[in-house]
Amino acid sequence: MSDSPLTIGIDFGGTTVKIAVVFQSHIIDSAPPIATQEFNGHEQLIDAMVRVVEDLRARHPGVAAVGVGMPGFVNFEKGLIYSLTNVRDWESVPLKTLLEGRIKLPVIVDNDANCMAFAEWKCGAGRGFQHVVFMAMGTGVGGAIIANGQMIRGAFHGAGEIGQTSIDYQGRPGHYGNLGALEEYVGNGEIAAKAREAYTEAGNAKSINECSPASLASAAHQGDTIAQAQWEDIGRLVATSIMNCCWLLNPEAIVIGGGVARAGELLFKPIKEHLFAQLSGPFKDHLMVLSASFGHEAGIIGAAALAREIV
Amino acid sequence: MSDSPLTIGIDFGGTTVKIAVVFQSHIIDSAPPIATQEFNGHEQLIDAMVRVVEDLRARHPGVAAVGVGMPGFVNFEKGLIYSLTNVRDWESVPLKTLLEGRIKLPVIVDNDANCMAFAEWKCGAGRGFQHVVFMAMGTGVGGAIIANGQMIRGAFHGAGEIGQTSIDYQGRPGHYGNLGALEEYVGNGEIAAKAREAYTEAGNAKSINECSPASLASAAHQGDTIAQAQWEDIGRLVATSIMNCCWLLNPEAIVIGGGVARAGELLFKPIKEHLFAQLSGPFKDHLMVLSASFGHEAGIIGAAALAREIV
Repeated sequence: MSDSPLTIGIDFGGTTVKIAVVFQSHIIDSAPPIATQEFNGHEQLIDAMVRVVEDLRARHPGVAAVGVGMPGFVNFEKGLIYSLTNVRDWESVPLKTLLEGRIKLPVIVDNDANCMAFAEWKCGAGRGFQHVVFMAMGTGVGGAIIANGQMIRGAFHGAGEIGQTSIDYQGRPGHYGNLGALEEYVGNGEIAAKAREAYTEAGNAKSINECSPASLASAAHQGDTIAQAQWEDIGRLVATSIMNCCWLLNPEAIVIGGGVARAGELLFKPIKEHLFAQLSGPFKDHLMVLSASFGHEAGIIGAAALAREIV
Repeated sequence: MSDSPLTIGIDFGGTTVKIAVVFQSHIIDSAPPIATQEFNGHEQLIDAMVRVVEDLRARHPGVAAVGVGMPGFVNFEKGLIYSLTNVRDWESVPLKTLLEGRIKLPVIVDNDANCMAFAEWKCGAGRGFQHVVFMAMGTGVGGAIIANGQMIRGAFHGAGEIGQTSIDYQGRPGHYGNLGALEEYVGNGEIAAKAREAYTEAGNAKSINECSPASLASAAHQGDTIAQAQWEDIGRLVATSIMNCCWLLNPEAIVIGGGVARAGELLFKPIKEHLFAQLSGPFKDHLMVLSASFGHEAGIIGAAALAREIV
């Protein structure tokens, strides 16, 4: 109804549930996060979420809808949670219906990668494009696809799983038996493990913490050639999956977010090099490879932006 | 205007240009093919095409529009041919405008893989689905994507190039420097070359013709274990690219056509095995892997079906 209503965005993570009031793409008020694992089941956790939402609405009566981003497999149309990756007792939970019954506002539920992508597409780096591939690099590698100016969710709301696509038909098995899954090479933990090996081989053993993507970025900036080589390699592997998206979808923009993307040009430079070297004219001439605009807040802002769509 | 108008479909190939009148998905009249390479330039060839179209229209005055499938890179919106793969003097030819000026009927121009996919989606194996990945296996490997009930063409009309996607980030370079391009493993010529090697290694040298996909299919049906192993391998490689499409797009159906697909279960069995072994529930539980309904006529029928969209 209103052009820019207030909405509430909920970023449901494996560690915390973060809830905030958003106006346009700005968080104007937020509540202390809820510790996800302190609750025994989905009912108690939903109770806690409802209390926080009601507190925020008491301060902001204009809130018109609520959006929720969930870390798992979601039926977007029904707002039903099939299962969550790291949280127990969340099988077949009709979250949209349960929340709407309690707070008497329209609720929209999507998976977290789609929320982050929606934030970038509607308010961030992907704004104005009709064809965007979004990628989130963290513990896992998630993604989302916008084509013909629409989010592509696929037949069963699963689309966008770029981290599960293969870069090597004879490669390492992923969680689902998928050989060569990108995530098995460039997830946080895999990046650290590979770097640690490289340091050990070079006779310069390091702890796994010293090999985290953040530490590797610092080291590379300080001229550490082993760290630099890791980023070159990560960029090359990521470029392969992005290239596949480009041949399939011919997007205008690739937007990359998540913790690993904070490495900036250390990551983006090799991605662009290897990507542009493997595409023909119409696939690369106008292609932009962009860093996501939103950091930790992408999930909340995206969920709130999705909620604006149902007001 | 009419529900089922007569339209003309033109399948422009590197060897022949085939032109026919189509009612629904049936060819009701056709002209002798034009030999593509007998013409020195696009103007003469267009003259010949116009003459055939006019002959057919004299017999079928109800023809309402013309669709053309072209073997190359096409600007679909403008009906402009940027370039063709195997035909000279076809750079930057505004085919739609030129044909419309001559025949005074609406004309629509698309690339051949999109036309074949459109035939399968509107009238063939992919009918009724909203999310389909189409693949054509022949000399090269082409494709097209339908998502959200729409053809996905991408930002510059290039989408659907499944044959250029990589199955191995360290693999053989494709035409565009793309390492591990599927087409470099399972194009007609590559299949034959690999089979020939296998026969030679086994001390049973064969000519390259005896190693064509058609010959390999006959041999495999007759119990030739070398030929059978080739099909198993082809299926595994193709499954990797299809799996990537599934993780990205979560389609309801994969439709595979082209000459190589005539091998039937020799190809489809290993594809399904390796595909379903590498997908999780929502990606595979309802997924259909289907053989294309139309053979050689897919291009004409698809071009004619596209023409129906502009009547």
